[in-house]
Parts: sequence; structure tokens; C-alpha cells
Amino acid sequence: MNERALIEAIGSALSVRSGRIARWIGDDAAVVASGGGVCVVSTDTMVVGEHLRLDWISPADAGHRALAAAASDLAAMGAEPGEAYLALGVAAPLDSAACLELVRGAEALAEQIGVTIAGGDVVRSPAGFVTVTVVGWGRDEQSLVGRDGAQPGDLVGVTGRLGGAATALELLYGRSPRGGPHDASLIARHARPTPRIREGRALAAAGVHAMIDLSDGLASDAAIIGAMSAAVLEVDVNALPLDDGVSDRLLAARGGEDYELLFCAPPRLRSAVEEATGVTWIGRVLEGSPGGAVLARDGAAVELSGFEHQLD
Amino acid sequence: MNERALIEAIGSALSVRSGRIARWIGDDAAVVASGGGVCVVSTDTMVVGEHLRLDWISPADAGHRALAAAASDLAAMGAEPGEAYLALGVAAPLDSAACLELVRGAEALAEQIGVTIAGGDVVRSPAGFVTVTVVGWGRDEQSLVGRDGAQPGDLVGVTGRLGGAATALELLYGRSPRGGPHDASLIARHARPTPRIREGRALAAAGVHAMIDLSDGLASDAAIIGAMSAAVLEVDVNALPLDDGVSDRLLAARGGEDYELLFCAPPRLRSAVEEATGVTWIGRVLEGSPGGAVLARDGAAVELSGFEHQLD
Repeated sequence: MNERALIEAIGSALSVRSGRIARWIGDDAAVVASGGGVCVVSTDTMVVGEHLRLDWISPADAGHRALAAAASDLAAMGAEPGEAYLALGVAAPLDSAACLELVRGAEALAEQIGVTIAGGDVVRSPAGFVTVTVVGWGRDEQSLVGRDGAQPGDLVGVTGRLGGAATALELLYGRSPRGGPHDASLIARHARPTPRIREGRALAAAGVHAMIDLSDGLASDAAIIGAMSAAVLEVDVNALPLDDGVSDRLLAARGGEDYELLFCAPPRLRSAVEEATGVTWIGRVLEGSPGGAVLARDGAAVELSGFEHQLD
Repeated sequence: MNERALIEAIGSALSVRSGRIARWIGDDAAVVASGGGVCVVSTDTMVVGEHLRLDWISPADAGHRALAAAASDLAAMGAEPGEAYLALGVAAPLDSAACLELVRGAEALAEQIGVTIAGGDVVRSPAGFVTVTVVGWGRDEQSLVGRDGAQPGDLVGVTGRLGGAATALELLYGRSPRGGPHDASLIARHARPTPRIREGRALAAAGVHAMIDLSDGLASDAAIIGAMSAAVLEVDVNALPLDDGVSDRLLAARGGEDYELLFCAPPRLRSAVEEATGVTWIGRVLEGSPGGAVLARDGAAVELSGFEHQLD
């Protein structure tokens, strides 16, 4: 079974049993009413050897990376991250000492983004892992942005630059030769990604219709917004903003873990969005059923071939 | 390093950076102000082969057990559980199909205790595991009970009966012979523990001073309340209420995972507590520095020898 199929089956097995739940499985994060505001929660797990290669990055990088991935889901809702909870599976090479370095790496990022690591758990395990649960806060449900609001006619925009994390993996796996002038900055994109908290809040405040963080890759993540919005995102591969040292545009379109934000906004918001944050406009939203995404290059469609996480 | 040492080192590496945080690392759960009320969060991880033996219990039991352990931490604060988030590491024997059964087992308990499983994550992993983060809600910080409020003169009480989970492990490991009339109910105490949500809320409403759930065992957990309250809990081993089929009183005092609630209440609350829930009074709180716990039997002290989780 692959990851998406299992998540769908899990969603079908569950029921909402509280009027508090505004958004849940399927969006970047769950949204739960709380007193005057809303509580936004997301959980992200990284396993040593799979998502965290301690032969490539330090335990402190691993902590940064795990918190960044979880916080990025809150950024994609436009929520303000508040607290994080870290559950650690302790197994060499992620032994106790390395776990403490991991926590210090997470804490350094937490300080930058104003998060308190307020609890967690440590257990002995046959394999090292870290599960980060982040809790964020918003004024109300309307102040947050889901994945399902894209409308035909919207422009498709993206923050920052793409392809750095995927190109770094080419270097780290030895599939591309090292020695280029951008190796270090590319590898930093893999090791210490930046969750786009400020950008996400600014885009939410500007009124964008739909937003997602690029964890699985633009091709896959654009298709998620399209499917959930019952519309088609058409993205021009030639328009993608590339990180320095990235030469393969298709890799930038398909590769994951850049943790930039992909969003859809009506044309009337173009200048409000451009004032809110740096943005590159890379496509538009079309009518189409069932919804999804189309990548185009030089006027021709490019196969999506997004990454599928195979579980067993 | 053992678990407690690593948690202490982690706590020292972290900073609170929000006035919202009322309780954090060291208590059963973190308590965070949110709008009109408080948000209570706890995370609990169980690893296949360590905490979840799928040769002993079913995947559905494992889901029940993992959610029960996390919800029990909220019970120990007197909080109302609201949502749960499940992160699953997928590895045989906890393959995709078993994960789905695990979720169904968690969902059945969630229905009983009014919880919505509102999100999570699934990842491929070299070892199966489940991290459950539970979010609960309370009126205000004063309506919740920490571990640090025990006062000399308080009575020590416990809900339910003890020793069942530890006696089940004796049977499951083959250290005690099977075939007794209580084998099935004992093994159910291990496989499907009951988080004492209703009891915890009633005890909090009655005004108990300190409370903890018995996960590591009465000896260890009483010592935690004592240490955090700078007082000594004196517990009479002969007074412990035992599950049917439990004959070893010291095992009941030292064994973990009964998930009953241990609490300290002033004598004036004796009848209010007895009206709130079934209770057995098992000791009293004495002055003493540094704080801790003393187990006594027939007037003589019994060595605590609480369980230490060794990590590496």
C-alpha cells in the first residue's frame, strides 16, 4: 500500500465527534475551535535512514529539519506556530547524546520562529525517529487557508526558489558530481529548510484562496490543491524560480522538500500578494473535472510523475 | 543514559518563550492558555517489540493501548480529552493492513471517551511505532491538577485496582504459569487499559492537590509526586487494592501500566473524594526533604526499586 492509500483508508475509518473540528485529515493541519480562537495542529514524523540520514547531516540539522517540516504545515495554513512536542525513538546512531543534539537543533529553530518546545516523550526503539507535533493559533477559521479553495481564474504563485533540496539529494546520493560552487547552499536546503511562517501569514492575510507547502514536490502538491478544489492547476515549468545550482527544471517541478509555499489567488489580489511577500507567478487555475494539476513546458504537457511514498 | 536523565537534559536545553505556557516538561501534560480556556497536550510513543508485542496483542489492542496511555496523561490533569493525532511508523508486522487495524482499535476507544482522531502521519520505517499526541481542554489552569501540589497531612488515594498489568506480563513472558481463572482479565489489563478520564475530572473538581497516572508503577510515580511537591508520600503496601488474580503485593507496588490515578487530597476532602469516585486510601503525605516516596509493609520500609527505562 502507498502512503496516500493508507491515509485515505484511515480517514474512512474515523469519525468527527465534536463541533469544535473545523478541518481535519486531508488538509495541512487540523483546525479546532478553542475559546475565542482556533487551534491548528499538525504532526510530522522523520525516521533515521529514511528521512534523516545521519551520515549526511548532523543530529542538530535533523532536529532543525524535523521541526521545520512540521512548522511548514502551519505556515501553509497561515497559522502562527505556538508550541511543539517532540517524541524521540532512541537507537544508534540516534543515541541519547545525539537526541540531545537533535533537540538543541530544534530549539535553535524554535527560537527563530517563536515556538516553545513544551513537551514530548523519549523511548528506546529498534530504529531512531522523531515525531514533531506542532500546535499553532489563529484568530478564527476564516483567517486560515485550506487546500480546497482554488477557483478557476486564480493565479498560481510560489514563494522563494525551487529545486535546491532535490538537487542536494542528487549530490548526496552521488548521482551528480560534487565540486560545484553551490554545493554547500544546496545541501543546506536539504539539511536546514526554512518554514515560511511569515510568508504564510502574510499570504493568508492578503486573502489567497488555497495554499500548501511543497513537501512532496510541486507536481504532487499542486495536484492535491487541484483535487481538493475540483479545479486544475496549470503550471509552466519554464516559469519556476530555481535555486542557484539547479539546472534540471523537471527535477525542480517533481522534487520534494523545498518547503516553499504554493498558493492560488484571484488576479485582483496580484499586487496585494506581491506587497506581502516575494512571489513568482507560475501558472493559473482552470476549470476541469476531476481536479488535479498539469505541468506544461514550451506549450506541451509534461508528465506529472509525482513521488509516491511506498509503505509495503 | 536512562530516560529520566535524558528528559532532564532536554528540559535544561529548552526555554519557554510565551506567556501562554502554564505547565510544560515534567508534568503529565503541557498546559497552554488559549482564548478563554486552557489547552492540555501530551505525547506518548509505543514501539513494536518494546511496548507493543504483536505476538501477544492484536493491532487493534495496540491502537487502544497507545491512545489509552496518552489519554491517561490528560486524565491525570483532570482535563477533558478532545482530539488525538496518530503518527505511525510502518514496518512488518505493523504493515499497512495492521496499521489500519491499529487505527480502528484507537477509534473504538476514541468513541468511548469522546475523542476525535483529527490527524496524523504515516511513514515507512525500519521499525513499527505509534506516537499519539492528545489535546485536551480545560476551563482554566486552576481547574487542572499537577504533580507538584501534595502537602504534608494529605491522604494518598488510588482509583481502581492494581497489579493486573504487571501480573499479565509475568504470564506473557512465561515467568508465571498460565491456566488460572483470571488469566483473561489480567491480560486484558495489559492489552486494553482504561484511561480514567471521568475519575480524573471528578477528582480535579473535588479539589485534590496532586495527581499522576500510574504508568511507570506506583513506587516510581509516587516518588515523582513527592519529588515535585518537596514532600514524602508514605504508602502502605498492605493497603493496596489488588486486581483479581494478583497475589504479589510488591509487584503491584512496583509494576507499571495499570493507568489508575494516584492522588493526594487533604483529609477534609475525604468524603467529597469518596463521593466523586471509587477510591482506596493507601497512605499519607509527610514532611521530608528532598521529597520522594516510602513504601511500608507491616511497619517496615520496603525498597522502592522503581523501574528505570534504560535508553542506551
